[in-house]
Amino acid sequence: MKVLLRIAYLGTAYHGYQVQPNGVTVQQKLNEAAADLFGFDCDVTGCSRTDSGVHARDFAVTIAEKGKTGLDTAIGADRLPQALNARLPDDIAVLSASFVPDAFHARYDVKSKRYEYLIWNGRERDPFLLDRAWHLPAPFDEAAIEEMRRGASAFVGRHDFSALRDSGADTDEKDAVREVCEVSLTKNGDLISFRVRADGFLYHMVRIMTGTLVDVGRGRMAADDLPRLLAAGDRRRMGATAPAAGLYLDRVFYE
Amino acid sequence: MKVLLRIAYLGTAYHGYQVQPNGVTVQQKLNEAAADLFGFDCDVTGCSRTDSGVHARDFAVTIAEKGKTGLDTAIGADRLPQALNARLPDDIAVLSASFVPDAFHARYDVKSKRYEYLIWNGRERDPFLLDRAWHLPAPFDEAAIEEMRRGASAFVGRHDFSALRDSGADTDEKDAVREVCEVSLTKNGDLISFRVRADGFLYHMVRIMTGTLVDVGRGRMAADDLPRLLAAGDRRRMGATAPAAGLYLDRVFYE
Repeated sequence: MKVLLRIAYLGTAYHGYQVQPNGVTVQQKLNEAAADLFGFDCDVTGCSRTDSGVHARDFAVTIAEKGKTGLDTAIGADRLPQALNARLPDDIAVLSASFVPDAFHARYDVKSKRYEYLIWNGRERDPFLLDRAWHLPAPFDEAAIEEMRRGASAFVGRHDFSALRDSGADTDEKDAVREVCEVSLTKNGDLISFRVRADGFLYHMVRIMTGTLVDVGRGRMAADDLPRLLAAGDRRRMGATAPAAGLYLDRVFYE
Repeated sequence: MKVLLRIAYLGTAYHGYQVQPNGVTVQQKLNEAAADLFGFDCDVTGCSRTDSGVHARDFAVTIAEKGKTGLDTAIGADRLPQALNARLPDDIAVLSASFVPDAFHARYDVKSKRYEYLIWNGRERDPFLLDRAWHLPAPFDEAAIEEMRRGASAFVGRHDFSALRDSGADTDEKDAVREVCEVSLTKNGDLISFRVRADGFLYHMVRIMTGTLVDVGRGRMAADDLPRLLAAGDRRRMGATAPAAGLYLDRVFYE
């Protein structure tokens, strides 16, 4: 059996999820905590990669003994969150734990993931949203929000999303076809929330979607042109990649 | 005329509002920003003191030229927030600015203030509430919340609040009589919010109220005993002083 954890983390202090040579990562912290708790080296497999500074409210990882398909432990699943949290920094939290079969794969078995992107649209910055939202002070009025909402609906469906992928990622993406099953864009006071759920995401996809919707809201691009521009597959016709700090992996869905 | 600012700050990095010899404070940062903007040394007067690590969503300060009752500036009130924000750290924000008569006093003219205290009652910690709420994992059920609510109502009215004051503060509190005009205690999911509005607060008063209500929720104290214990004026009969990080100055009210 493997351990399956649902975790949350504030991404500000981390160079993303995935272990890398330069910079502290969430995976590295989980590796250290698991090895300390179980008493042997572990393989920690995440449901996704997240960029430096991106947050997660719900992220899934599995833990197995290093080089094996599972692990043995006498610790009950109900005691694992507290035991691991005591060994993790405060900006990472294990929310729940369960045991899953060796065959379970944290990444390949994901059915869909939902992201949320937060834009703070107040005139002045909000100290409580520092590193947690993109501050765009020029106000989006109701008409702009409605236009952005229409733009967002163009993302729904099964498409080749090449136009919404940045190059330069060390990824194993075989193709750019993904299925977006849900989008929503809401404005609550001065906080704009863009949510998108899909069976998979390309490198920077949500952040480019966000930058593109901001261009739509600003009138630099028409929502009606989005389907055509998406189909053309040209990254340069889309908006800028929005900053990492506004992005949250909101929920991971398995079978 | 004086400048009146409404500001917000994340208190985590600061040794409270008030300038002090050891540690960086919010007032010091405002002093530096104002001197840099106006080109002369300034007196910055706050509506209140806040302890190290306490936050403010709405805090008022006035700015006058050092040693004078007001200041002269050609900068319009509408341009002041941005000009000052450019000179302040990101965890302090000027939300709005106006000009007030020299006679206005940021502290003595306060009619009332409202504080909010946040308790995170989830089983595991929430990384997004790190330094922003008090984590108490043992669940408060509906009956406990109702008992705490009844306890909170004992604070309402004009009372001598000596029992809810810690010693050791360098304050100029002449007496301990204050009038609490509003309290509320709500639980939304796993987040408990205690709000209290009064014409003034004693040293640690909201934090001791919170610690006392937690004792009520835990069954260590009966809500019905609170009026009698308050009247007895003995600090030792009240609960512990809750941690600073859960406390927010929520709103300052003037005439």
